[in-house]
Amino acid sequence: MVTASDKQEYFAKELHRMPFAQHLGFQVKEMRQDKVVLEMLIVAEQHTNLLGVVHGGVLMSLADTAMGLACANLGSLPTTIDMNINFIKSIKAVGAIRAVATVLHHGQSTMVAEAEMYSEIGELAAKARGTFFVVGKIEDRD
Amino acid sequence: MVTASDKQEYFAKELHRMPFAQHLGFQVKEMRQDKVVLEMLIVAEQHTNLLGVVHGGVLMSLADTAMGLACANLGSLPTTIDMNINFIKSIKAVGAIRAVATVLHHGQSTMVAEAEMYSEIGELAAKARGTFFVVGKIEDRD
Amino acid sequence: MVTASDKQEYFAKELHRMPFAQHLGFQVKEMRQDKVVLEMLIVAEQHTNLLGVVHGGVLMSLADTAMGLACANLGSLPTTIDMNINFIKSIKAVGAIRAVATVLHHGQSTMVAEAEMYSEIGELAAKARGTFFVVGKIEDRD
Amino acid sequence: MVTASDKQEYFAKELHRMPFAQHLGFQVKEMRQDKVVLEMLIVAEQHTNLLGVVHGGVLMSLADTAMGLACANLGSLPTTIDMNINFIKSIKAVGAIRAVATVLHHGQSTMVAEAEMYSEIGELAAKARGTFFVVGKIEDRD
Repeated sequence: MVTASDKQEYFAKELHRMPFAQHLGFQVKEMRQDKVVLEMLIVAEQHTNLLGVVHGGVLMSLADTAMGLACANLGSLPTTIDMNINFIKSIKAVGAIRAVATVLHHGQSTMVAEAEMYSEIGELAAKARGTFFVVGKIEDRD
Repeated sequence: MVTASDKQEYFAKELHRMPFAQHLGFQVKEMRQDKVVLEMLIVAEQHTNLLGVVHGGVLMSLADTAMGLACANLGSLPTTIDMNINFIKSIKAVGAIRAVATVLHHGQSTMVAEAEMYSEIGELAAKARGTFFVVGKIEDRD
Repeated sequence: MVTASDKQEYFAKELHRMPFAQHLGFQVKEMRQDKVVLEMLIVAEQHTNLLGVVHGGVLMSLADTAMGLACANLGSLPTTIDMNINFIKSIKAVGAIRAVATVLHHGQSTMVAEAEMYSEIGELAAKARGTFFVVGKIEDRD
Repeated sequence: MVTASDKQEYFAKELHRMPFAQHLGFQVKEMRQDKVVLEMLIVAEQHTNLLGVVHGGVLMSLADTAMGLACANLGSLPTTIDMNINFIKSIKAVGAIRAVATVLHHGQSTMVAEAEMYSEIGELAAKARGTFFVVGKIEDRD
């Protein structure tokens, strides 16, 4: 039987095999049927822009990956068709940022997911939505 | 007098002071009144996803930075309000990718820019549009 | 004193003065601090596309108006800077469609709102997010 | 043989069978392999918002329809998956507005198109991009 904890471990391993996720230091914090939480530790010397806050590209990379995992968590292997994001509050270069992703629509060919991005102190920093194409099924793992 | 070549040098230096741009290796290739071209060299061990192609986050980071520079090149210091992107063709992990950004609208409070992303062999890989808030003016440099 | 019911009445009147909202038949169903609900009755002979389902433009028009009202309900007069929408499920040309809008961010210069669109039978048909520029304040009405 | 003029006539008829396009008064002005131009006449009593300018919903409806026709013009029957738009300049309630749509990507399953919206005096009023799902092929007509 595949338990929730097996699943989280499985996807944590997958994330370790994804070079860009490793390069930025993404970590799986939680994987449930309806929610995936990713985190990354901000390193000021690597992840900021000229204003000294977290670069939007970091947030978009984390959001995209979290939404993709949320799709994968429902059994479909996704590839991102398109994505949008609103930057709501800039994030200081301290502590961790967190993406909480949920799936809005699980179709046969396409999926829609959302992600909310939070700063270390729990402020909503950005909100993203993405459309994903289903390129395959993720087989049961046992 | 500020020449086009001075300007490109100035922004190249600015980019060097942006940690995330350095982390990913962005380089200014061209800066003209109506167009900014950024490039980065793809490193397979750092910039790819599970499928071995360039991670969407890399493309979004490059697009955001190129559009921001295109705004700055017109004299306004921008911060990204929101951004969207369509991923059209996946990019293999070889050679350089290139973002060509242009400004669609230069308002007093907000700006709108676009970026097209090209693979090493010149295929259109993605198209982005962003909205920027003008947080200040970039003073004449002399 | 301005009560919630006064407010709903005020905005219902405002909507009656908006020609396009009248043309499509938008109605205010609910206005609370954190939520605005608009409805419209689908007329098959007016609001559908070639496939006989509700035209995406109808959903976008309702979403934009609902989000704008949600901003106005918090005291700021908004103008739409940009908007995005995912169409999740097509809507048959029967009964009413409903937009539920909430504000994600209430800044001094810009606001961000979301809207979920539901079919007559309560299915999520579309989800939109918009960015709004604050062009003024809505004075207390008494 | 199907000529360009036959094609334009064919799609003009299709548009006449689309209730919402009729309701708003869309007209095909030009259909070429790489470009579709739609127009509509603004009626102040129907198509404006509280500020007396063209409602964003009108522009989004025209953009969506123009992009869909641009996809259809290449032989694929599209349904809109998602769409985004930047409103750049408000349009006064006089004369006609015009959408110029082009296809960026023509895949087997999905297509990407863009539309630029112009006011009567030729100002860029809005720019949209949409993703479309291919639900079928448009057979040769003879």
